[in-house]
Amino acid sequence: MRCSVLRTAGELEVQERPVPRPGHREVLVRIAAVGTCGSDVHYFRHGRIGGFVVRDPLVLGHEPAGRIVAVGTGVEAARIGQRVSLEPGVPCRRCRYCHTGAYNLCPDMTFFATPPVDGAFAEYVAIADDFAHPVPDHVSDDAAALLEPLSVALWAHRRAGTGPGSRVLVAGAGPIGLLVARVAAVQGATEVLVSDPDAGRRALAGSFAATAVLDPATDDAAGTGVDVFVDCSGVAPAVLGGLAAVRPGGTAVLVGMGADEMTLPVSALQSREITLTGTFRYANTWPAAVALAPSMDLDRLVTGHVDLDHVGDALDPGPAQVKVMVRP
Amino acid sequence: MRCSVLRTAGELEVQERPVPRPGHREVLVRIAAVGTCGSDVHYFRHGRIGGFVVRDPLVLGHEPAGRIVAVGTGVEAARIGQRVSLEPGVPCRRCRYCHTGAYNLCPDMTFFATPPVDGAFAEYVAIADDFAHPVPDHVSDDAAALLEPLSVALWAHRRAGTGPGSRVLVAGAGPIGLLVARVAAVQGATEVLVSDPDAGRRALAGSFAATAVLDPATDDAAGTGVDVFVDCSGVAPAVLGGLAAVRPGGTAVLVGMGADEMTLPVSALQSREITLTGTFRYANTWPAAVALAPSMDLDRLVTGHVDLDHVGDALDPGPAQVKVMVRP
Amino acid sequence: MRCSVLRTAGELEVQERPVPRPGHREVLVRIAAVGTCGSDVHYFRHGRIGGFVVRDPLVLGHEPAGRIVAVGTGVEAARIGQRVSLEPGVPCRRCRYCHTGAYNLCPDMTFFATPPVDGAFAEYVAIADDFAHPVPDHVSDDAAALLEPLSVALWAHRRAGTGPGSRVLVAGAGPIGLLVARVAAVQGATEVLVSDPDAGRRALAGSFAATAVLDPATDDAAGTGVDVFVDCSGVAPAVLGGLAAVRPGGTAVLVGMGADEMTLPVSALQSREITLTGTFRYANTWPAAVALAPSMDLDRLVTGHVDLDHVGDALDPGPAQVKVMVRP
Amino acid sequence: MRCSVLRTAGELEVQERPVPRPGHREVLVRIAAVGTCGSDVHYFRHGRIGGFVVRDPLVLGHEPAGRIVAVGTGVEAARIGQRVSLEPGVPCRRCRYCHTGAYNLCPDMTFFATPPVDGAFAEYVAIADDFAHPVPDHVSDDAAALLEPLSVALWAHRRAGTGPGSRVLVAGAGPIGLLVARVAAVQGATEVLVSDPDAGRRALAGSFAATAVLDPATDDAAGTGVDVFVDCSGVAPAVLGGLAAVRPGGTAVLVGMGADEMTLPVSALQSREITLTGTFRYANTWPAAVALAPSMDLDRLVTGHVDLDHVGDALDPGPAQVKVMVRP
Repeated sequence: MRCSVLRTAGELEVQERPVPRPGHREVLVRIAAVGTCGSDVHYFRHGRIGGFVVRDPLVLGHEPAGRIVAVGTGVEAARIGQRVSLEPGVPCRRCRYCHTGAYNLCPDMTFFATPPVDGAFAEYVAIADDFAHPVPDHVSDDAAALLEPLSVALWAHRRAGTGPGSRVLVAGAGPIGLLVARVAAVQGATEVLVSDPDAGRRALAGSFAATAVLDPATDDAAGTGVDVFVDCSGVAPAVLGGLAAVRPGGTAVLVGMGADEMTLPVSALQSREITLTGTFRYANTWPAAVALAPSMDLDRLVTGHVDLDHVGDALDPGPAQVKVMVRP
Repeated sequence: MRCSVLRTAGELEVQERPVPRPGHREVLVRIAAVGTCGSDVHYFRHGRIGGFVVRDPLVLGHEPAGRIVAVGTGVEAARIGQRVSLEPGVPCRRCRYCHTGAYNLCPDMTFFATPPVDGAFAEYVAIADDFAHPVPDHVSDDAAALLEPLSVALWAHRRAGTGPGSRVLVAGAGPIGLLVARVAAVQGATEVLVSDPDAGRRALAGSFAATAVLDPATDDAAGTGVDVFVDCSGVAPAVLGGLAAVRPGGTAVLVGMGADEMTLPVSALQSREITLTGTFRYANTWPAAVALAPSMDLDRLVTGHVDLDHVGDALDPGPAQVKVMVRP
Repeated sequence: MRCSVLRTAGELEVQERPVPRPGHREVLVRIAAVGTCGSDVHYFRHGRIGGFVVRDPLVLGHEPAGRIVAVGTGVEAARIGQRVSLEPGVPCRRCRYCHTGAYNLCPDMTFFATPPVDGAFAEYVAIADDFAHPVPDHVSDDAAALLEPLSVALWAHRRAGTGPGSRVLVAGAGPIGLLVARVAAVQGATEVLVSDPDAGRRALAGSFAATAVLDPATDDAAGTGVDVFVDCSGVAPAVLGGLAAVRPGGTAVLVGMGADEMTLPVSALQSREITLTGTFRYANTWPAAVALAPSMDLDRLVTGHVDLDHVGDALDPGPAQVKVMVRP
Repeated sequence: MRCSVLRTAGELEVQERPVPRPGHREVLVRIAAVGTCGSDVHYFRHGRIGGFVVRDPLVLGHEPAGRIVAVGTGVEAARIGQRVSLEPGVPCRRCRYCHTGAYNLCPDMTFFATPPVDGAFAEYVAIADDFAHPVPDHVSDDAAALLEPLSVALWAHRRAGTGPGSRVLVAGAGPIGLLVARVAAVQGATEVLVSDPDAGRRALAGSFAATAVLDPATDDAAGTGVDVFVDCSGVAPAVLGGLAAVRPGGTAVLVGMGADEMTLPVSALQSREITLTGTFRYANTWPAAVALAPSMDLDRLVTGHVDLDHVGDALDPGPAQVKVMVRP
């Protein structure tokens, strides 16, 4: 099969590799669509993300969808032909985190496109059968792939405790911020403010999910008293502005990756009893993501498609791009 | 002022009474609309609900909305003219339940239209300022009144833990059941089954909120494995059917009032770890109800209007009636 | 190896069977002590528990502790020699319940001493490595075995939400009821009432955990307004009495197995918003059970020991017996 | 009556003032004991705490206990003579925070010894009847006063979610840190690590509550993987060390007041999904505090007593002092 391999920062190469064989309780999936994500872009540009360093050639891509074409032992043959969205991290199933349902914190996670584990910019991948989630036919291949970023958004709101009548501020109107805003609305938030310095992104946010948009250069959210702030920017001023917007007893969730450290107003966190946390991937989100997909307008986020020979183009997106999909 | 008084079961009389004077931290509200509820109907027919007996003449009506026309001491005069939806129970503010936010369980609650406390089938009522919730102009008087049953529905889902991707079964498609179904959808439930023996109500449920409707005479929900079951029927077979439909670890909430006792499958509750609870009114629902009102299509539930002289007609509704509103 | 086999109701036989071989990610444990439980007694007497029927010879015993003597592939040899308490149910690790940490609800659970799965009244058992929990030397073999009923108690309180300052009523002072009372105290409950018709059990409860004991023949708990009621009796009058004792907003947890159906005061559950649920085994309790063991005085519950040849004696306990341990 | 008045930083004066008259739903309390707290010390030294500035003479003291000697209207005369512990902040009872049980966040709180509200270094105070909590005779006056810092500790653990089997790290072994450690143990934490640079305080922590003590100069808690970290030091290195000790999915609660800002490892908070929050006073803690008082050994924390004429001595404590009590 063909796959796109990152040899070192900035160097992609299409290689021929053997089609993987599905092991016990695994399925083999013919990939139909894979989203490109900021972390793929980061590996492509820098060859590393923090302590994760690309030492050996690595296949990127961790937002895949496709169709089951073969099954390993212990899996019903009836699954062959099923369209699936792949949850790209398979945990150990045996540690305290796996036992308690917090498997995103499993220290022995095998996660696509994270050195040394290959990802899905390839014609085929094999994966544990329970992490290949069936999708109905009315969900497109692209949308099925985008259940991964949708899961990031769902997880953010689970940690935030968003509910009906919530007032929510989202910083950053990239793909994740847009989905966080949309999921807020879908679960009953009645005010969804989205802040982004880019006018084009604000316009998209306004038409996609937000009840109002803010330009951080001119609009100050401080004192709006939102119940929930979700940062999808990773930028310190946005985080500080968001914290200033949260009501006493509210919650701030940091999703966007940025600096390792930030100087935070701990005294204000204390006197207003704000809960601050972050998210690391997701757990148990796919069933809800599949069910919500038809309400999410996911295909609207797709602004381009490339094949395996042009993954590099997708990993160097222009500012107007939202989601570029790889179709192997 | 004029008000409609229940003298004894079946006997209503319009009386002239003095307009109430708003006390300290109270507002006086000119009533614009009041919903009629099953409990009003029950008092009208039977002169009692369980231990609550109408011994002295009683004004019914506990779903009121109107406009503030005067304020007592300690309330800003600026509130005069404000349109408000009234939360019809004012708690003691001092007991453990009030302290902890569970004020619906306050043993010293003063609740409209519950002997010996008069209700709102009247031209004016006085109420604590913080239980007169402002509503924006785009919410009609009828809709503002119907924030009360909407609150019942919101509260049911808070106790149920409904969330995005939930699968919900509602038994009974009266006004409460319809709103429970609608609120489920608004907060992200992706499957909302509504069961009712009446074909007309099923049709209304289907157009108002349900993703599917069930006729209990022919459709068996057992084994559907819903996450949440909300009974709005008060009927034992519906409750038993609903419990059989709940997945292991799911929740059943009894909202409909019915028999004092039911024979329940406790062994099944245990082995499937189902959580069973009920609701008693609501607490802290109005802010969300106000915010959600525009998404709720509340005016569609209104099937008639009467004035104070015809409250008796409203309290003897035909089967096609959903909500008859009193407009004093 | 030798094991005690239930051939049919009332007939136990010691058989020689091959020592099991630990499979991949399994350990082989030399059993040191196994508690006898009400369900073992029930299978011994009746040959069935509800739908679980002993059709083929069955080894009973699901409260085992021992020492690892061999390991399968994928397990570090360093575990050989480790003293362990066995969590006797291994779930599928792949269903929605396993994924979310509610593995006790896994429909594909393999649970000791539940037809057709053999239990631990045997010299050796093999089990998944992560369900053999290490115990420190200051926890005796008997106590290590009794982490299983301790887990039942911990789980009951997790579902009850017991916390510091809670007032708790426990019905039934058998081993589970005693442990439920003790765990309540250990986690900060300041009032622990234990009700039992047997004077001897009441005395034991009083010295083991209760702050007060009740004789249901003469003492009425109704109106005590406890936060939490845990039924460990399975008897309808005890359940009804307990429900009458729960304060508004409180919780009732049914642990004791009894009749399939009970007639319950649903109207009171509603108007007081009591949460009623049951427990089915436990999940994620062993780490806490191991840590709490030294505070639990578990050895005090042991009132006798038998070897494999006298399991029948242990399964026909006299009224003064609390826990009889099998030492293979 | 006599009371101790802070005129300006460092200047206390005993004044004669009229005994307050209890208003509607208030009680008049003859003060028996008042704890001195770090905030009293801070006002005494600096004349301000952040934005709270002592502009007019202020009575300090917010940890009072005493006996009801008179009641206002609406309070049963039977309460006269009752020994009470005073919860020193009375909220508005009408805002969203009061309605939802989070009354510590009420923006209209009237809190003792916070400008311009006088405190309890006085012979008498009047307070709302429901904030004067009855205490049984076996709780001493000093202990009754110390239910206030005990409440701080209980609240910290409610926000932390500490439970049976939890592993807890506490930074700072002052009165609050000691109580936080003790409350951890009382609610079932099985490992309670206390870190303090002072050897004397470590020794006290070891005998009062801790299962182990740490000297931050030599002991590194990083990697201990505790479930809960509670900072009672307000010192940045302690906070950073504590965060490094928390396991993935764990919680850090900042109780100690310190710098307005701290530079925090947000990337680590994200990748380990740590929940960080602070506490602001407490809500609904007194019932549990009263019930737990006998287990808390509160009198052991009292290291001195002064009368109203020597409050200045109490507000300039030596390093060996833990709690100095004022007895008016």
